[in-house]
Amino acid sequence: MNVSNKYQEIINSRIKDINIKGQPKELYDPISYILNLKSKRVRPTLCLLSYSIFSKKINDIIEPAIALEFFHNFTLIHDDIMDNANIRRGEKTIHNKWNKNIGILSGDLLMIFAYKMLESVDNNIIKSTLERFNEIAIKVCEGQQFDMNYENQELISESEYIKMIKLKTAVLIGFCLELGGLIANQKKTITDKLYKAGEKIGISFQLMDDYLDVFGNLKFGKEIGGDISSNKKTYLMIKLLEHAEKSDKKIINNLLSNRNDNTTKVKKITEYMIKYKIDELTKKIMNEFFLEGITILESIPGKSLELKNYFEEIRKRKF
Amino acid sequence: MNVSNKYQEIINSRIKDINIKGQPKELYDPISYILNLKSKRVRPTLCLLSYSIFSKKINDIIEPAIALEFFHNFTLIHDDIMDNANIRRGEKTIHNKWNKNIGILSGDLLMIFAYKMLESVDNNIIKSTLERFNEIAIKVCEGQQFDMNYENQELISESEYIKMIKLKTAVLIGFCLELGGLIANQKKTITDKLYKAGEKIGISFQLMDDYLDVFGNLKFGKEIGGDISSNKKTYLMIKLLEHAEKSDKKIINNLLSNRNDNTTKVKKITEYMIKYKIDELTKKIMNEFFLEGITILESIPGKSLELKNYFEEIRKRKF
Repeated sequence: MNVSNKYQEIINSRIKDINIKGQPKELYDPISYILNLKSKRVRPTLCLLSYSIFSKKINDIIEPAIALEFFHNFTLIHDDIMDNANIRRGEKTIHNKWNKNIGILSGDLLMIFAYKMLESVDNNIIKSTLERFNEIAIKVCEGQQFDMNYENQELISESEYIKMIKLKTAVLIGFCLELGGLIANQKKTITDKLYKAGEKIGISFQLMDDYLDVFGNLKFGKEIGGDISSNKKTYLMIKLLEHAEKSDKKIINNLLSNRNDNTTKVKKITEYMIKYKIDELTKKIMNEFFLEGITILESIPGKSLELKNYFEEIRKRKF
Repeated sequence: MNVSNKYQEIINSRIKDINIKGQPKELYDPISYILNLKSKRVRPTLCLLSYSIFSKKINDIIEPAIALEFFHNFTLIHDDIMDNANIRRGEKTIHNKWNKNIGILSGDLLMIFAYKMLESVDNNIIKSTLERFNEIAIKVCEGQQFDMNYENQELISESEYIKMIKLKTAVLIGFCLELGGLIANQKKTITDKLYKAGEKIGISFQLMDDYLDVFGNLKFGKEIGGDISSNKKTYLMIKLLEHAEKSDKKIINNLLSNRNDNTTKVKKITEYMIKYKIDELTKKIMNEFFLEGITILESIPGKSLELKNYFEEIRKRKF
């Protein structure tokens, strides 16, 4: 078993031990439910891998790492309500299985439990950890609001889109690495680099998700072309509308306004994406972000091989 | 100007200075909106009054006290969504003025800002403060879920009801006093007493709200009998159903199942409450809780006169 698998198991077993239970069960059952869904525990695993560059006292990082997993799951619960999503990780979302009120309140509670996990942080760094955690949490909320705004906004620029996925997804990946450094008492120049590396790679992973939604083969639990069907303004769609010639753009916009025949719509728009080499363009930019991140990681003193391997593993698994 | 008014102004002016602003405005505008609604700032004022029993370095307590105000306002935003409430403090609720998604997300953000206010706490007590804050926040969520459960539950006992209002309302009032003691570095025997005093008085204030909804005269922004119209299981209703003779109980249950003529319903049920002396019974128990709280406060060394005066002032203002 490789290191990241071992860490994933450590996280799972500690989450079981923490055993968030209580009354009323309408509030606690949804939390057990979401924490028991099949999950790769990417965020806390990243946190442990980052920490282990500097220290082997792995026990000190487990609960802070779980704070990130709890926070991430809180955002999933609330985002699924806001996005009207019925399925998550192949299972019913909480508001779908129970109801929206229970989704709101159990999400709130899970966010509080994220903060509870920070109680384990050493006295001398708990304040700075809390400060950074709050900053990141604020950005994640901002990202979600930008994402919702963009649904009703006709034109989104590439830079607006990158800013949004950075806030919504990448800052938390960045913080996973940074927190590993913080808890291992690394100085700011190091933790800043860790953050930046994670942020870059986080952006590349989100771009990969956009890419795979159109050009993926066997993406688990998700239909190919789902983003196109639902007119989602992904990186690929933004670049297609940017690059398409006037006459093609008119046809594309017609296809987008068509809400009936999704098979034709997905097929045709995919063809246009290939015509304008949007697939290659997307792969190029996501590789750039990924490599930028890896390069920053390599500038950090210490053995970051396991962490880099894990990032590569995720990248391969995605393809 | 008395001390509590002065504290209220200090709180208001610091909230203005903190100036929660940012992008996107769809996320931040609702927060400015709710924080600018007319409010007596009861919770942070209590916190300052409690702190000032022990210390005059008032500056240290302001931000932790505002954490409580932010947390309280976060619960209002989310509770109003869950309760489908359209009006709060005489103005539109956030989900009514904007929409539910904005209510969920701006509520989340305000909770994070509550935690942000704790960043000002001294290194040596920030961990214990965070621990207690989390414990209290968890209880408040539990209280809200019990409250929602009780809507669909036919029979609720007095003790179940008291437990619910304790969690939903009183624990936070208790913590307002306790936090004053914590930040003033008081020992646990003192902070426990502060908590307990606030909790008792918090219960009495919630019972007062129930009472005034039926027997109040000029309750600002609220119609008399609203709880009866909406079949809310308040303390008064629970006791009425407990005390009413079989034949009266049948009529009362008939009135409750009538959703058309609310004027008659409110009038008749109020008459039954008077017949069974539910008004006097409620006043008696709320006075008991209030006095229990005051007695605990008086057992604390230090001048708690201003705090007691403030509690008396709220009690009088409520009547």
